[in-house]
Amino acid sequence: MNGAESLLATLVNAGVDVCFANPGTSEIHLVDALDRCPRMRAVPVLFEGVATGAADGYARMTGKPACTLFHLGPGLSNALANLHNACRAQVPMVNLVGDHATFHRPLDPPLASDIEAIALPFSRWQWSARRAETLGVDGARAVAAACTAPGRIATLIVPADAAWGEGGEIVAPESPPPPPAPKAHQIADVVRLLTNGARTAIVLGAHTTQGPSLVAAGRIAARTGAKLLAPFTFGRMERGAGRPVVERIAYVTEMAVAQLAEFRQMILVGAPAPVSFFGSPTRPSRVTPEDCNIVALASAQEDSAGALDALVAALDAQKVEPALQAYEPPRAPHGDMIMSAIPAAVSALLPENAIVVDESITSGRGLMAATQGAAAHDWLVNTGGSIGIGVPLAVGASLACPGRPVICFEGDGSFMYTLQGLWTAAHENLPITTVIFANRTYAILKLELAAAANNPGPRAMKALDLAPPAIDFVALSKSLGVAATRATTAEEFALALRRGIESNAPNVIEVPL
Amino acid sequence: MNGAESLLATLVNAGVDVCFANPGTSEIHLVDALDRCPRMRAVPVLFEGVATGAADGYARMTGKPACTLFHLGPGLSNALANLHNACRAQVPMVNLVGDHATFHRPLDPPLASDIEAIALPFSRWQWSARRAETLGVDGARAVAAACTAPGRIATLIVPADAAWGEGGEIVAPESPPPPPAPKAHQIADVVRLLTNGARTAIVLGAHTTQGPSLVAAGRIAARTGAKLLAPFTFGRMERGAGRPVVERIAYVTEMAVAQLAEFRQMILVGAPAPVSFFGSPTRPSRVTPEDCNIVALASAQEDSAGALDALVAALDAQKVEPALQAYEPPRAPHGDMIMSAIPAAVSALLPENAIVVDESITSGRGLMAATQGAAAHDWLVNTGGSIGIGVPLAVGASLACPGRPVICFEGDGSFMYTLQGLWTAAHENLPITTVIFANRTYAILKLELAAAANNPGPRAMKALDLAPPAIDFVALSKSLGVAATRATTAEEFALALRRGIESNAPNVIEVPL
Repeated sequence: MNGAESLLATLVNAGVDVCFANPGTSEIHLVDALDRCPRMRAVPVLFEGVATGAADGYARMTGKPACTLFHLGPGLSNALANLHNACRAQVPMVNLVGDHATFHRPLDPPLASDIEAIALPFSRWQWSARRAETLGVDGARAVAAACTAPGRIATLIVPADAAWGEGGEIVAPESPPPPPAPKAHQIADVVRLLTNGARTAIVLGAHTTQGPSLVAAGRIAARTGAKLLAPFTFGRMERGAGRPVVERIAYVTEMAVAQLAEFRQMILVGAPAPVSFFGSPTRPSRVTPEDCNIVALASAQEDSAGALDALVAALDAQKVEPALQAYEPPRAPHGDMIMSAIPAAVSALLPENAIVVDESITSGRGLMAATQGAAAHDWLVNTGGSIGIGVPLAVGASLACPGRPVICFEGDGSFMYTLQGLWTAAHENLPITTVIFANRTYAILKLELAAAANNPGPRAMKALDLAPPAIDFVALSKSLGVAATRATTAEEFALALRRGIESNAPNVIEVPL
Repeated sequence: MNGAESLLATLVNAGVDVCFANPGTSEIHLVDALDRCPRMRAVPVLFEGVATGAADGYARMTGKPACTLFHLGPGLSNALANLHNACRAQVPMVNLVGDHATFHRPLDPPLASDIEAIALPFSRWQWSARRAETLGVDGARAVAAACTAPGRIATLIVPADAAWGEGGEIVAPESPPPPPAPKAHQIADVVRLLTNGARTAIVLGAHTTQGPSLVAAGRIAARTGAKLLAPFTFGRMERGAGRPVVERIAYVTEMAVAQLAEFRQMILVGAPAPVSFFGSPTRPSRVTPEDCNIVALASAQEDSAGALDALVAALDAQKVEPALQAYEPPRAPHGDMIMSAIPAAVSALLPENAIVVDESITSGRGLMAATQGAAAHDWLVNTGGSIGIGVPLAVGASLACPGRPVICFEGDGSFMYTLQGLWTAAHENLPITTVIFANRTYAILKLELAAAANNPGPRAMKALDLAPPAIDFVALSKSLGVAATRATTAEEFALALRRGIESNAPNVIEVPL
């Protein structure tokens, strides 16, 4: 058994059985090994940023890592931007990066680069394998590192001769270290705050906006009157009818400040203290009131889920019923403009158990409010602000959850970063409906420009345009094998969305604005 | 004057007046400053890898740096793969990367990352600006660093408050340090080798396959009988009728070994010793004969052009006429298969002074041989092996050389990495004809897989396919505003190429294989 075979077998034994891959010559023995490891599903991507975004989406929906396969330093480089987002989403992921054979590397061939240095900024664990005999051990350790709470990026660099060398051994899964439990005084401190009568917010991070943690948070809120919040950049939120309501902290600084003004106390559950996305000469960096007492129930590295359970127990709230969102029939669209009709249409047509991926930036701002009382669903957003994650996230989430419809909202600027993901959606025939809001501009930047400059000049404005030429997203999508249509009225949009979801296949709806 | 304004003015005073830009909120004051710096041409790109590839092409054709403008660490991350290629091309480039305001950065907002660490692997100079007052000095230093021989990647990180702060000062250009001249004994050593009667190759790197250096090399070859070679990964070669002939070292290891077998001596002019692209269990890593004496006339950091001139003088060859390639009418295509007809068609239709960008991997292997005696032209290739540079290189070369036709040969796999570059070509209406060889597979990897595995399995082969779905490159190009056609016969190809060049506008020819 060669090193490549031992590595793949070790990974699938540890539950890592999906590989988003864009390999090259130095990874060819790992590709060859796929035929001896049928349990590893290889999903091809045409650009590496699709792979890391997809692995992120997969991990958000399953809680477990997928792996990726990249060609040397440049392949890893192309994957980094969505690794930044994945770091911020605190998901587990195992990146396999091929390297030159150890004897060839010192010759500095054209594709040589310092892969360890490239991996460093966005990996929380990394290791350069040495030889075939220990590649299985390296793989088992990479998975354990990735699964260490709350979820980490692990990068394993695999020299070609370690992959092709004989003597590989399949290694049993390694258990990740359990996350440290928050200390008793942390729980006690938070109980005191929650019972002192002051207006309190609980900010849910580290995967606590889903599953039993969300229910526990709902009990705490019902018992104490605290309000549940999530960072603007949450990873995954279970929401809609039957779920406890968690309010997202606003992106716009002034809105976040207004939203948080009432709170004298804030409890952080594996979440960072809310700050403005960007610094500004005129707006505050911190969005919480100056006199707000901010206390951590658990850090991101601690056991947030366990901390919430302990808090429920300390509050004697095990039997308290959380306040659950009622199903709310969608409101009729107001006006005949398509943009005001879309949120209501989405809310009406959102199927039970759908997965929504939202990277629609300015155009989609009404979507979450409109779907608050829709059928139960999951909502995924961009966690790190690096645009170009929407389509890849949708691909990964769809592969993670066969049979569940996925609806992906994209701004046209964001979409263009990783449009190659549509091809993978077509290749795998994934039921993803992608809505592209085509305003032909980086609209959010024009807002920022207007805020920064008194009277922005024409050259500055032009630098933020996505036209001319105006991209034809329908033709673009079809060229990549994805069915597509254009919706210019509210009726056309509702029809296209219904048909798109019912098609159970990848499809795109362009909404020209 | 704010920092942003002083920086742009300092750059244009130093000759850096093209900016390939994909900015965000933290760079909005640099965007705003464009309207007070009309000499800076901003060229928008929809993905950062297009910017660095274009800046590379611009520098290869002009010898001077363009600048880029990126949004924080993720923006720079997307730019890295083509920075790898640019490092290997030894071109000058100035990257401007925005960062959070210095007072905001410690709050670790979602888009924060370690930009210095991200820049490190592919920058030869980097600096984090501190404040507006010194941003001009920083900019002048960045340009001087970029222009230090043979050409370097310089990355300047610009915090938002340094850009918006008042007190900026325009700074005069700084002279880069002159490259060290090779020592006299290096010249004397090489003269001895070139006159000892042994079969000798001269490998031309560091921009010596163009201009006066190429003529000097031609004189040396004519005087001594040495053969002129270029690395497989040369940056730019002037070739065709009227130019000294430089033979490219082959990619395939066995072919390179055969090509170099005759040489007992090899003189390196700012070039690395030839090695195989990848290590292999069965093929050699070094492609030169074991008894070949390899000597450097100049290192890449030394004055290669000056060294060639000194060598010409030492050989008393100032008046020797280099052997120049005669114009050769293109041979008639052999057979009726389109792939055998394309090289002859290209040779026949290549306009005088054209720029050819070649990233056609397996499909384009006959192109250089067929165009050896075509009208004089420049040839640019991928220098670092990171695919996805062809279209961006063409954009940069075209902007650098208004009026010159550009023909870009792409493999479909490579093209898909940075297809967003077509949009910029359309936006700027650049006369680039892009030929996409659509074999729907990473063909080179299937060859490597066949070499590595006895009998590759179906899952491995499938992981290297670009279908299904088969991408429609004609529709894809049109959707991005670029005229496109499909050529399935030799006649169709010749007609499309002629019309494409004559159109004086961006156009694509898909060649399905």
